Amino acid sequence: MKTTILLYDRMTALDAVGPYEVLSRFPGNEVLFVADRAGPVRTDTGFLTLVADASLDEAPAADIILVPGGFAPPLRTGPVHEWLRAADAASTWTTSVCVGSLVLGAAGLLAGRRATSHWMTLDNLTGYGAMPAAERVVIDGKYATAAGVSAGIDLALTLVGEIAGPEAAMAIQLGIEYDPAPPFEAGSPAKAPDPIVAFLRENRDLVVRL
Amino acid sequence: MKTTILLYDRMTALDAVGPYEVLSRFPGNEVLFVADRAGPVRTDTGFLTLVADASLDEAPAADIILVPGGFAPPLRTGPVHEWLRAADAASTWTTSVCVGSLVLGAAGLLAGRRATSHWMTLDNLTGYGAMPAAERVVIDGKYATAAGVSAGIDLALTLVGEIAGPEAAMAIQLGIEYDPAPPFEAGSPAKAPDPIVAFLRENRDLVVRL
Repeated sequence: MKTTILLYDRMTALDAVGPYEVLSRFPGNEVLFVADRAGPVRTDTGFLTLVADASLDEAPAADIILVPGGFAPPLRTGPVHEWLRAADAASTWTTSVCVGSLVLGAAGLLAGRRATSHWMTLDNLTGYGAMPAAERVVIDGKYATAAGVSAGIDLALTLVGEIAGPEAAMAIQLGIEYDPAPPFEAGSPAKAPDPIVAFLRENRDLVVRL
Repeated sequence: MKTTILLYDRMTALDAVGPYEVLSRFPGNEVLFVADRAGPVRTDTGFLTLVADASLDEAPAADIILVPGGFAPPLRTGPVHEWLRAADAASTWTTSVCVGSLVLGAAGLLAGRRATSHWMTLDNLTGYGAMPAAERVVIDGKYATAAGVSAGIDLALTLVGEIAGPEAAMAIQLGIEYDPAPPFEAGSPAKAPDPIVAFLRENRDLVVRL
């Protein structure tokens, strides 16, 4: 099995690395990080560089395609979208985390599909003909989308369960000791105190720029 | 505020990137990735390269030091331990994720302290004079240790709460939409089915080699 994860300038590190940690532990799965050009990619908060091992042109067909979110995701028509459409034509699963779903949408892949995104950008999906669903992980056919940033871990475990059954997913979950215990109850706009939700809505640029 | 995250060959990507995603969003916090040598570091499952922006020698004093776990963490006395002791002498918080706590232990920093680690290696802490605690995040004085891999996210949110109060931590939590919903209940040995726990115990090399 092959998995390809797209990197781009100012993408969000955890969007890619959360699913990577799960998918790279799936026996026989080869994961490849790709970008416009092979080489270093600086992530959104500015202190971490991940490396793309291949350019889009060099990337072989893959069973799973994953598009992470980022501060300024590639939404204008360009080579990333051309590549995505070709990669999607060959994939078994086309997936995204956070505003990565908007990139899939901009490539024309989510028309008529249920999909999710970061809670602040969920409504933007309608601009691409998708049906927004405020859920942690949404599967519609071969398209699997996750909510914001950390939701990619739940997405990847769900995928492994779909592909290889619950035992495989549970073994990986136990391996990465994914027994989350957030010290606060503020992970969704429904749970966070109203002033915190308002603060983020008013300072949207802290999270994403579309 | 300054945070330094240690990288080393075959470290576990999510151990570093989970906390990074939280700590790098803390206003005014500068995060620096360091390693024996500046440059690329390949992570444990073999498909991802992170970049250290400075060598240990170049790293300035930091308020928070974070040591991630990995497949073969540096437990033999060497330059990493010398650096850790010096960095710890200047830090406000010295922290670890997964078997990173064993690295802190090997550097002599956890003697007489309560600490945690990946569930499979928790007992190894006693070899360094530490008191193992089967908890997700353990704080003893300025030492904050997290359980396996994904627990680093909980550690970092706990730290931000300690440093800047719950509102700051909640804003970051909502920003990364950390409202975890694992599709299976298998994240700890107490919750996972017995055969899955036994499988991992018998194939410990899938997770860590000490």
